Amino acid sequence: MVKEGMKEVVALQSKISRIDGEKGELEYRGYSIHDLAENSTFEETVFLLWNGRLPTQKELEEFKEDLIDRRRIPPEVIGQLSTLPDITHPMVVLRTAISYCGSLDEKLHKIDPGENLEKSKEILSMIPTIIAFTYRMREGKRLVHPREDLDHTANFLWMLKGEEPDPLEVEALDTDLILHAEHTLNASTYSSRIAASTKSDMYAGIVSATGTLMGPIHGGASQWVIEMLREVKEEMEKNGVSPEDWIKEKLRAGEIIPGFGHRVYKTMDPRAKQLKDLAKKLDEKRGNDWCSLSRRIEDAVREEKDIDPNVDFYAGTVYVNLDIPDEFFIPIFAMGRIAGWTTHMMEQYEENVLIRPLQEYVGEKYRKYVPIEERE
Amino acid sequence: MVKEGMKEVVALQSKISRIDGEKGELEYRGYSIHDLAENSTFEETVFLLWNGRLPTQKELEEFKEDLIDRRRIPPEVIGQLSTLPDITHPMVVLRTAISYCGSLDEKLHKIDPGENLEKSKEILSMIPTIIAFTYRMREGKRLVHPREDLDHTANFLWMLKGEEPDPLEVEALDTDLILHAEHTLNASTYSSRIAASTKSDMYAGIVSATGTLMGPIHGGASQWVIEMLREVKEEMEKNGVSPEDWIKEKLRAGEIIPGFGHRVYKTMDPRAKQLKDLAKKLDEKRGNDWCSLSRRIEDAVREEKDIDPNVDFYAGTVYVNLDIPDEFFIPIFAMGRIAGWTTHMMEQYEENVLIRPLQEYVGEKYRKYVPIEERE
Repeated sequence: MVKEGMKEVVALQSKISRIDGEKGELEYRGYSIHDLAENSTFEETVFLLWNGRLPTQKELEEFKEDLIDRRRIPPEVIGQLSTLPDITHPMVVLRTAISYCGSLDEKLHKIDPGENLEKSKEILSMIPTIIAFTYRMREGKRLVHPREDLDHTANFLWMLKGEEPDPLEVEALDTDLILHAEHTLNASTYSSRIAASTKSDMYAGIVSATGTLMGPIHGGASQWVIEMLREVKEEMEKNGVSPEDWIKEKLRAGEIIPGFGHRVYKTMDPRAKQLKDLAKKLDEKRGNDWCSLSRRIEDAVREEKDIDPNVDFYAGTVYVNLDIPDEFFIPIFAMGRIAGWTTHMMEQYEENVLIRPLQEYVGEKYRKYVPIEERE
Repeated sequence: MVKEGMKEVVALQSKISRIDGEKGELEYRGYSIHDLAENSTFEETVFLLWNGRLPTQKELEEFKEDLIDRRRIPPEVIGQLSTLPDITHPMVVLRTAISYCGSLDEKLHKIDPGENLEKSKEILSMIPTIIAFTYRMREGKRLVHPREDLDHTANFLWMLKGEEPDPLEVEALDTDLILHAEHTLNASTYSSRIAASTKSDMYAGIVSATGTLMGPIHGGASQWVIEMLREVKEEMEKNGVSPEDWIKEKLRAGEIIPGFGHRVYKTMDPRAKQLKDLAKKLDEKRGNDWCSLSRRIEDAVREEKDIDPNVDFYAGTVYVNLDIPDEFFIPIFAMGRIAGWTTHMMEQYEENVLIRPLQEYVGEKYRKYVPIEERE
């Protein structure tokens, strides 16, 4: 029997995260995503994913120091970033830059638990720098180098904007990264495990995952959502079309509304709930109406089709409130998900079986090879 | 039930290639691999894979012209190649360079049958140039640019060596590329389809596949084989240890002999048979004994363990006879397999379902989040 899209296939056992799609539950290493979003930090969550337990105060301090030391990217990579045309999607830049960083790593092919953790720290710490540098080069602004006195998320906003980060913005983005850190065997994570299953290097798997995440029916949806929101807003302001009518029209035309529905959740994505609260807070502070607009769309889609929003729907509403340009939404998803990708690769290396499925051949068989002179 | 390694899972339907593991059969689009290896050329085989049928003489000529026009790589990519340290494995260089080429493609995100074919031609034609340039830079030799009067394989040998290619060497490598062009849902091909299944771009999938192919229990085995052959040869010449005794010793110590056994074939890999004949011819011409040494190892492993050699075993014996350095074996595998990767991605885009399997969670559940001050 052909398992199209692997929909009901249990591909492997894992101890990293758990989803209950009926109840709308998500846990990392047994901890509720709500507890983590409300109480933890991105660094603590990464420690939890990599080590399977929460750190003590001392462990967390040491871990943070360790990450801080790895924020700088090699000058060759900065040089490469500057050669890429502005039309290149920053996610493609990120994929290329990570691959390049790997090619400079002298211990690239060493695969053991200690080395894997080293590489995970390197990649996780360099990604924000790559993203921020790409952004500033495009804006024609001078590069802002990492600071050692700031945590992961605050330092990213500092490098991106070149000004003291606002505490509410740091909190919102840090929570967003926690919510995006891990999500069982999604397509990008699975592709990183396939690379690990051939015993290829960690960079290979992360590069696979980065490329795969970008697809519009995976992480790419967050960018697609904001593009839709902008369109709805314009239609409302210019032509007086209500968001509800706009949605009905699209659904009647058989179009897909990005940011709704999920292969695994049959109820509201618990991450969407958290992001919705954040978006509301940010809207209030910034005097924006992105969240109220999003909520009208959420209600309209639910009424018409009984489908719930997923993580991508409210993520866009958060990012736009942080003045992050649309094309950088997916790279920020990657900035969070790198935690899960690296954890899954380490788990795969530990008890490895090559991932190689079968296919059903449905084409012609035993055709006769006719010499080229005799073909018509 | 957990489907570890997807061993018995039929992941999808495909019309590209067919393996009968019991009978040792392999067909591309219904044509026997033996017919293709003995009568076809790499370009014709690529046409067959992409179009589902063999070309007429005129179509083949036009197709070859089209590929020739795309052999040059962007100057930025040449610049990047020159910055990479010599210790970087050429397969990592290839992965990074392909990702870079993608980042320069203005139509990167356009996904439709016509564009996909365009990109497939671009990537297939650029790979030999990237490999040859990497090689010559490392050797400190001047770059040899592509020639328009030579076919795909002859042009590659020209760029690699900078001298008129020898007809037997061209024939051997061309056949090798045909034999490596496609092989159902192996790990690298599957990872390229996963990228396509999220509707990410073609370069993303090819970059995934390139990274995944490199693993020692996938394409990486060909390099591992030659390293073993060199060791056996040295032991024989220096210490008088026979290959048979060397193999017995290794097997008794529980070590894996690279290039033997295959997840799908239960008898001799039909590609290994073809490569063995080629290796023998090359040995005779070059006055080498790589093939006879390989055959002794083949016999010894079969006697001890009743396992047959796979494609990687005799590929190494062919490459070493073409004076290709060990580290370039896997890139040459990629030079062939790019045909299959691109074909699979095009098939996936055509009737797409997102590939996202499930997992069984076997870790702790509902753990209580303890504030950091209270942790011990």
